Amino acid sequence: MSYAAAQASIGDSEFDRDTTVTPRAGEPGVYDAELSAGWTIIAAVNGGYLLALVGRALSAALPHPDPFTVSAHYLSASVPGPAVIRTETVRVGRTLSTGQASLVQFDENGAEVERIRVLASYGDLSALPDDVRTTATPPVMPAYEDCFGTDAGPAPIPGSSAIVDRLRLRLDPATAGWALGSPSGKGEMRAWFELADGRDADPFSLLLAVDALPPTAFDLGLIGWAPTVELTTHIRHRPAPGPLRVSITTRNVAGGFLEEDAEVWDSADRLVAQSRQLARAPRS
Amino acid sequence: MSYAAAQASIGDSEFDRDTTVTPRAGEPGVYDAELSAGWTIIAAVNGGYLLALVGRALSAALPHPDPFTVSAHYLSASVPGPAVIRTETVRVGRTLSTGQASLVQFDENGAEVERIRVLASYGDLSALPDDVRTTATPPVMPAYEDCFGTDAGPAPIPGSSAIVDRLRLRLDPATAGWALGSPSGKGEMRAWFELADGRDADPFSLLLAVDALPPTAFDLGLIGWAPTVELTTHIRHRPAPGPLRVSITTRNVAGGFLEEDAEVWDSADRLVAQSRQLARAPRS
Repeated sequence: MSYAAAQASIGDSEFDRDTTVTPRAGEPGVYDAELSAGWTIIAAVNGGYLLALVGRALSAALPHPDPFTVSAHYLSASVPGPAVIRTETVRVGRTLSTGQASLVQFDENGAEVERIRVLASYGDLSALPDDVRTTATPPVMPAYEDCFGTDAGPAPIPGSSAIVDRLRLRLDPATAGWALGSPSGKGEMRAWFELADGRDADPFSLLLAVDALPPTAFDLGLIGWAPTVELTTHIRHRPAPGPLRVSITTRNVAGGFLEEDAEVWDSADRLVAQSRQLARAPRS
Repeated sequence: MSYAAAQASIGDSEFDRDTTVTPRAGEPGVYDAELSAGWTIIAAVNGGYLLALVGRALSAALPHPDPFTVSAHYLSASVPGPAVIRTETVRVGRTLSTGQASLVQFDENGAEVERIRVLASYGDLSALPDDVRTTATPPVMPAYEDCFGTDAGPAPIPGSSAIVDRLRLRLDPATAGWALGSPSGKGEMRAWFELADGRDADPFSLLLAVDALPPTAFDLGLIGWAPTVELTTHIRHRPAPGPLRVSITTRNVAGGFLEEDAEVWDSADRLVAQSRQLARAPRS
């Protein structure tokens, strides 16, 4: 598939279809959703996809449209199938509103199991002033063409993972050594990131982007499951069209936990998102 | 006062007294508290002190004692006086529990006003394995004696701020230029940090430490109020006795908001806490 071939638009894409939330009649702030099997890593639903879905529910529930800061605590592993998102409007202000959301699924006996609890403050990115005083600089990484895709070189995510087909992820070779048995040991992961159907990035797909790369633990030689405990994301600007650059670093592996710090840069060299998560370190 | 003079202990100090939460009889998970005027900056109660207080309530409510990751969304400015903290146990696991808390005060008509909403995951720091693979390095800053205290050089926090008397804060001269009208422009703030009565640090005082320095905005020449929207803190290790080093950086001032990234290092050169907040940038 050439770069310009299929170009889904915002509102009409795999991502939009699979993050659709349907308000329940007579239950304000409650939304039904279907967790798609298309966004799984091994058997579990990807945490970033889940966050995008909850993010859309909060956008529907709150008077402000855009996530500014979203704090998510992950409670149990989500599985494909039906889910219910319950939101609460905590505070409505002039420029920011704060909401809370809980995504639940149901076990074989019909009992409710909570998957993720979220606190978030929303605003209107379009209403922000244009001032930028950033001292941060975009990640230094090879051009899109010189990074590894799923079609060439090592697979960016090992195992049978449906999410690989939903993303156009091209890993910086410097952070892909683990796939060949030679991790750099630095705790870094960098990639070009797009949705596979060519849909442009928006604030909700940024919530996916911060948690869609292979774990930085892989680059430390720790290959295994690194479940997220908590993930907080700041969305700082509406992303420009074109591929994103995602750069993630881990500096402190200690006591069986690690942090992952992510930055997302857009094609206009704007720092559009910053996130940090606390995850359990793989045991290997 | 010489360094070894007054030495309050954990459990018996100004900080412990002022972060006391009293469980309400017959209302499980509900705590009464008194926000002390001793921890105010100008008229508002300091956000880190508030977080420590909510952190103690969650520690009382949850089966695990120590905050591992605490996400707080600030809703309105707290004032000295009575407050109620309502907690909810969201999930209890073997090694981690997740809870939620809401701190409210009451306006002149007795109506409830929510100040802060918190989601947090707690564990047992003493139960963590000893492995450390940190690539982070302690902040480069002058010795304790060569930093600016409140007794010499510029006041670390301008205005009439009671919190100054509760802290033994010694600012790195390289990040104190703003007090003399010459901010470095780098967006950095570094200080030695202790409680003034000599009480050693613990996980709760770390929640205070990440939000007790002058705003990094001052070092950018932006002098004014920088209210916190959201603050997430990871506590990674129980701090050793002795003064802490707190290093805060801001890299992205844009659209009227900025992030503050804090690291707290203990006297044993352990990275004991990492935090990031989203704040409104001062208008100047």
